[in-house]
Amino acid sequence: MASVFNDYYSHENHGPFELFDLGNFSLEEGGTLHDGKLAYTTQGTLSAQKDNAILLPTWYSGTSKIMADVHVGKGRAIDPDKYFVIIANQLGNGLSSAPSNTPAPFNMARFPHIRIGDDVRAQHKLVTEQFGLERLELVCGGSMGAQQTYEWAVRYPDMVKRAAPLAGTAKNTPHDFLYVETLNEAITSDPAWNNGWYTDSHAVQVGLRRQARLWSVMGFCTELFKQEAWRELGFSSTEDFVVGFVENYFLPMDPNNLLCMAWKWQRGDVSRHTGGDLKQALERIQAKVFVMPIDEDMFFPPRDCEAEQQLIPNSEFRVLHSVYGHLGLFGIEPDYLKQIDRHLGELLATPV
Amino acid sequence: MASVFNDYYSHENHGPFELFDLGNFSLEEGGTLHDGKLAYTTQGTLSAQKDNAILLPTWYSGTSKIMADVHVGKGRAIDPDKYFVIIANQLGNGLSSAPSNTPAPFNMARFPHIRIGDDVRAQHKLVTEQFGLERLELVCGGSMGAQQTYEWAVRYPDMVKRAAPLAGTAKNTPHDFLYVETLNEAITSDPAWNNGWYTDSHAVQVGLRRQARLWSVMGFCTELFKQEAWRELGFSSTEDFVVGFVENYFLPMDPNNLLCMAWKWQRGDVSRHTGGDLKQALERIQAKVFVMPIDEDMFFPPRDCEAEQQLIPNSEFRVLHSVYGHLGLFGIEPDYLKQIDRHLGELLATPV
Repeated sequence: MASVFNDYYSHENHGPFELFDLGNFSLEEGGTLHDGKLAYTTQGTLSAQKDNAILLPTWYSGTSKIMADVHVGKGRAIDPDKYFVIIANQLGNGLSSAPSNTPAPFNMARFPHIRIGDDVRAQHKLVTEQFGLERLELVCGGSMGAQQTYEWAVRYPDMVKRAAPLAGTAKNTPHDFLYVETLNEAITSDPAWNNGWYTDSHAVQVGLRRQARLWSVMGFCTELFKQEAWRELGFSSTEDFVVGFVENYFLPMDPNNLLCMAWKWQRGDVSRHTGGDLKQALERIQAKVFVMPIDEDMFFPPRDCEAEQQLIPNSEFRVLHSVYGHLGLFGIEPDYLKQIDRHLGELLATPV
Repeated sequence: MASVFNDYYSHENHGPFELFDLGNFSLEEGGTLHDGKLAYTTQGTLSAQKDNAILLPTWYSGTSKIMADVHVGKGRAIDPDKYFVIIANQLGNGLSSAPSNTPAPFNMARFPHIRIGDDVRAQHKLVTEQFGLERLELVCGGSMGAQQTYEWAVRYPDMVKRAAPLAGTAKNTPHDFLYVETLNEAITSDPAWNNGWYTDSHAVQVGLRRQARLWSVMGFCTELFKQEAWRELGFSSTEDFVVGFVENYFLPMDPNNLLCMAWKWQRGDVSRHTGGDLKQALERIQAKVFVMPIDEDMFFPPRDCEAEQQLIPNSEFRVLHSVYGHLGLFGIEPDYLKQIDRHLGELLATPV
């Protein structure tokens, strides 16, 4: 792996992770990941029968660390004493191959377009070649992780026994596309972005802060601010919270990495497998699926998720509650973790 | 009135309107409108008993024209054959005194801060001095017009017999404040804005288009895009609609005017009359009130409106349906107009 351009994407910040060699990995949009790497972590031990593997893909801007923190633990539904848990960092996130860590000439603004399907093919390579898996007990992810979860269940239906897409859709909605467009434009309108050829990723801080503020408007929900629930996190005002939590979260990240993931997010769509027929694509799913939106989510609203759930043969609709809206995914509230464990525990206990 | 800086704010575009002379009008924030003007229109005839007057204030970016188009007409609930209808353009909107039409030195970026209370005091001056009114049969407005409606009912409780705040709140929410901050920043981040001293208001088109796109995300709702309801307006794609309808709407406007109204919007709060006690403020209301949010509104959600309604003594909660979300206010759907007429008709028929 080339030297890391941005020191945010380090073991120090994100914990230890392994790199799986993808070689020269052809992409759906026509480019190639040259000497591509898929960053992943594991917890627990793979059983001799290889019948206890769980795969967790990551969301936009997230890494394996937050997926582990929110979803995995002793005594939790996803317990490493029982399961072999693989957390796969999505391509473009800065731990896996990304604009920030790829050497010239495919670095920065020349990093190729990636699709959700590329992520899932790369993860398939990892779980089959590295671990020799034929079945996954569960695939579970939130937001863009839900997009990957759906893609897994549609693309490799006989490998996925159970799926839990959290706060995400199988086919991105036009409203969501538009929202992400404003996030991207918030970054690229910063003159320091310089068409992706910034001299230092931290130079684009005006753009990163601007996108953080759009996240503040759409990423939570009106009630978080009304109830001032952010006080639990030690902030003293709306502005204190927005700067101290949201701007602070995005500031160290690499703008091209975020734009790479955003491009992919906008175009997540399992119906690419069936010529645009979403029903036909979702009917391919063999997994038992819990479709789990967050009640206050402003851009993956339960209504959109339920419309998809109704097209999935063996599925249930389980709504999570969080006053943090979409960013309830961060697992800030103890009660959210309990909800996750209750539903995932039930799903994992369901014979398939 | 000084020469109009931006020819958008013309009789040609907004129909004929009158100017009421506010003289040197002192503002709540400490400034003065020098030779201030309140632009208004009337329809119908004031009865000899002066007991048929209705006042309609305007929303952010709107003028008397759209208020008339959506709410007033023969055979409608607000029928000019029956009522004397006064439509008051809010200060800062470009027909009334605004950054775009005020001569130096108080023009453009030096136009003083205006509050909702200033609007309502100016309108009070108009209706009492120009028309000699002591009672208003109804005050009704949407969004910032709802803020003015609430302000009227709290500030002059014995003058307002009925009030219908549509898709707005009596006290702006912190989430809404944050949303409007992103709208403002979308404009002011355009280098052409030049701290408010642009050479031509049309020079700030990148900023105006950027704010239009944030309106597209939050101003409608997810279902509008999912259902492609914009096809009814003759557009062929999401992008075609966003550019052709939303960008096109904001492009001719004056950036300082929008920022002036936005500052006011962010700080709308009737509890300024009662030391921050919203309950006490709303209990002052003597009017019969129909609190009328739009079900799909993403920034004045029904939940916030209902919480206020429950503090208003003689009030009812009437939810409007529109797939256009907040911008359902534009009255694009024939069914929305019917809903408005049904509720306002009932309200006007209620003896007070």
